[in-house]
Amino acid sequence: MTELIERLRALVGAANVLTEGDLSAWEQDWRKRARGKALAVVRPGSTVEVAGVVRACAAAGVSIVPQGGNTGLVVGGVPDASGRQVVLSLQRMATVRAVDRDNLTMTVDAGCVLQSVQEAADQAGFMFPLSLAAEGSCTIGGNLATNAGGTQVLRYGNTRELCLGLEVVTAAGEVWDGLTGLRKDNTGYDLRQLFIGSEGTLGVITAATLKLYPKPAATLTAWAAVPSVAKAVELLALAQQRLAAGLTGFELMGRFALQLVDKHHPQLRVPFVQDSPYGVLLENSDSESEAHARERFEALLADAFEAGLCTDAVVAENLAQAHQLWHIRESIPLAQADEGLNVKHDISVPISRIPAFCEETDALLQREIPGVRLVNFGHLGDGNLHYNVQAPEGGDHAAFLRQYEDRVNTLVYDQVHRYNGSISAEHGIGELKVDKLPHYKSPVALALMRSVKQALDPQGILNPGRVVHG
Amino acid sequence: MTELIERLRALVGAANVLTEGDLSAWEQDWRKRARGKALAVVRPGSTVEVAGVVRACAAAGVSIVPQGGNTGLVVGGVPDASGRQVVLSLQRMATVRAVDRDNLTMTVDAGCVLQSVQEAADQAGFMFPLSLAAEGSCTIGGNLATNAGGTQVLRYGNTRELCLGLEVVTAAGEVWDGLTGLRKDNTGYDLRQLFIGSEGTLGVITAATLKLYPKPAATLTAWAAVPSVAKAVELLALAQQRLAAGLTGFELMGRFALQLVDKHHPQLRVPFVQDSPYGVLLENSDSESEAHARERFEALLADAFEAGLCTDAVVAENLAQAHQLWHIRESIPLAQADEGLNVKHDISVPISRIPAFCEETDALLQREIPGVRLVNFGHLGDGNLHYNVQAPEGGDHAAFLRQYEDRVNTLVYDQVHRYNGSISAEHGIGELKVDKLPHYKSPVALALMRSVKQALDPQGILNPGRVVHG
Repeated sequence: MTELIERLRALVGAANVLTEGDLSAWEQDWRKRARGKALAVVRPGSTVEVAGVVRACAAAGVSIVPQGGNTGLVVGGVPDASGRQVVLSLQRMATVRAVDRDNLTMTVDAGCVLQSVQEAADQAGFMFPLSLAAEGSCTIGGNLATNAGGTQVLRYGNTRELCLGLEVVTAAGEVWDGLTGLRKDNTGYDLRQLFIGSEGTLGVITAATLKLYPKPAATLTAWAAVPSVAKAVELLALAQQRLAAGLTGFELMGRFALQLVDKHHPQLRVPFVQDSPYGVLLENSDSESEAHARERFEALLADAFEAGLCTDAVVAENLAQAHQLWHIRESIPLAQADEGLNVKHDISVPISRIPAFCEETDALLQREIPGVRLVNFGHLGDGNLHYNVQAPEGGDHAAFLRQYEDRVNTLVYDQVHRYNGSISAEHGIGELKVDKLPHYKSPVALALMRSVKQALDPQGILNPGRVVHG
Repeated sequence: MTELIERLRALVGAANVLTEGDLSAWEQDWRKRARGKALAVVRPGSTVEVAGVVRACAAAGVSIVPQGGNTGLVVGGVPDASGRQVVLSLQRMATVRAVDRDNLTMTVDAGCVLQSVQEAADQAGFMFPLSLAAEGSCTIGGNLATNAGGTQVLRYGNTRELCLGLEVVTAAGEVWDGLTGLRKDNTGYDLRQLFIGSEGTLGVITAATLKLYPKPAATLTAWAAVPSVAKAVELLALAQQRLAAGLTGFELMGRFALQLVDKHHPQLRVPFVQDSPYGVLLENSDSESEAHARERFEALLADAFEAGLCTDAVVAENLAQAHQLWHIRESIPLAQADEGLNVKHDISVPISRIPAFCEETDALLQREIPGVRLVNFGHLGDGNLHYNVQAPEGGDHAAFLRQYEDRVNTLVYDQVHRYNGSISAEHGIGELKVDKLPHYKSPVALALMRSVKQALDPQGILNPGRVVHG
């Protein structure tokens, strides 16, 4: 091991091989669910250095945990407790390599923080539409490795859809330069797609070529009070028909989720919180003008009201109001935490089946745990719900978690499976769900995944034990 | 072999195992470049039958060539000359399994003809946007296996981006049911992406869940006379900024391509054919109204004229005129054939580099073959050109092809490679380009592709010799 450490120091400089002091920033996960112990945290400064690190670790038989901003939610980016894994942090590789205006692309190092990617796009006069809560600290490499979702998937797709090319260091320590900015390239298997979403288990993403979009002329936000999940699904269909790609956000929030925000953050003034079972946040991005956006939005909401799809609605008058509405949506996780521990899920089901799924699963949970409270909110336009379960009013939250967490997970995931859904819509598998996957994924799919892992990482040195057991 | 034939007859019925008579519909490729000899043409009627056929062939060590509508352009779907390969035709599997309106998805058998998929979507009140010249006979399974492109990629992406889920029979004859209709699913490697575009070398696609879109309220077509490729690229940027996702088509056509249409199909009345080096066809799909679409289109073209990006323009007054403009674009390949044999390319380069690529490559070809004529047209919005090379005026086209085809290919592909482009933007590799790929793809990428092939088809029975040598 000493020999490997020496080799790594020679490769990336002694200052970039951390073995002592407080390494919790790299060893502990974001949600503090797991605390590992690294042999070393290695911070290479270039793709060539990454390749050298991988070769050195492979030669020593030491496994590697690639890490970006360490904001993952499924324990996929921290080392295990063995003290024998190397954390390969991409954070020092944070250069925007190029912006190509006429090609609507930018090429960035994997360690660029998402927000800095957004800002570089903005400064060039364009938009990079990936947006999520951790954007101030997560890296684009991590977003790609986990195929991150966020709030604009409805229009722009997941991270997968925003990437045209990749540069990857393979498990053998070779560099694959796949940094094309091409929108069409049918020269063989799409290797890019294989690495995206593989959570660092097939290769180390070191750079990417990303799609840019022209900035919209105006972006407006509205809030609608909606009587049921079924009506929210109907409203979604109407909004998609009327606004087409202009509909860039459609978030559903259940009454209890909003009541929690109202209770713990009353200054946010949640609209219609007492009057309506559900709130829906809509965003309309218009390439023409604010006046046009407003006219289209108001016509949509008037027709929705007429059709009984909403009982009230408000369009934000200005940017400050729009931010406030989004702030309410984004404060739900915090308000939940203020209320106490809870059981979280990140699930998706076909949009058409969401009303029945919610009704049935709500009832099953009530039967199992009388008085249980459901914090149901999420990206309805993507079929993605954060269907979270909170202890009954006044109960002991920690005791609730101890007693019910496994039962609640099993009940919810079994329901998701029955509805042809996914037990991880946007957060990934990591270590947290790796043992659950065999219950919900077909043996054929799992066998194919193992074949791919074996083919691309035969030695099993890349993030072992995550996503799929080798 | 007789034993295998008997087994196949038992599996799918004797009437669906063709061994005699004229099998050229399955044995000869669309462009009549290759004529093979099949051991049998097998036409299963269900996924279970497909799996049985694959297992039977695997047990007998006989390789399989999956085939859809047999309209491929790179010799990827016909058997070799050995008489020892089974053609597995999906054509009998042509059922639309389900349309899910609220989820905006449809699930179809692989053998559905693309046009019938479009029609089923239309009848349900939606649009399936994949559109290409062979749509009356190609199958959706073939579109998926080759990741087909077409005219609306600019807005809706390639076939890859239009598919949410797949059902695949693996090389081991197992069925992977990945027919989810989910827009977000991060439960492991994206196997779907691996099979899409793999040209039948990794598995047999038997069904797919596809995205549907609301129909636009109006679709308008315009034609602009453009002074240069560089100005066309500027016009594209302006159109994308003004129309955003409303811009659903942007086709570039060089003067000589249009002169050929004018010469061989004078009744089509090509606009501005004598006055302008390039023509651009623009399509604007609007979710609001025809009046709005026209107003936006006219404002765009007026500003483009002011900025010198076009010297003249016309917006089609009605559907008939719009069809006529598209018909001109679609008649280029026919007009080329009317003029004589030529060397065809299906290339892409980053859009920003297209002006320099064209200028330099045009000049190199002129120097190599004085008087050579360039039929340059394509999907500029995707960076995809059909950069075709025609013999000098009055020359012997067949002699030209014999003398220059290889030199022209090498010159053009070397240029594409220098410009970080793709030697096959939308048609694939098949057998036609499999030996060219190693010259233009990195050894690391090729090694990864071979690893994947070996992992998913260790026996090498699926479409061997296509895409990548095992």
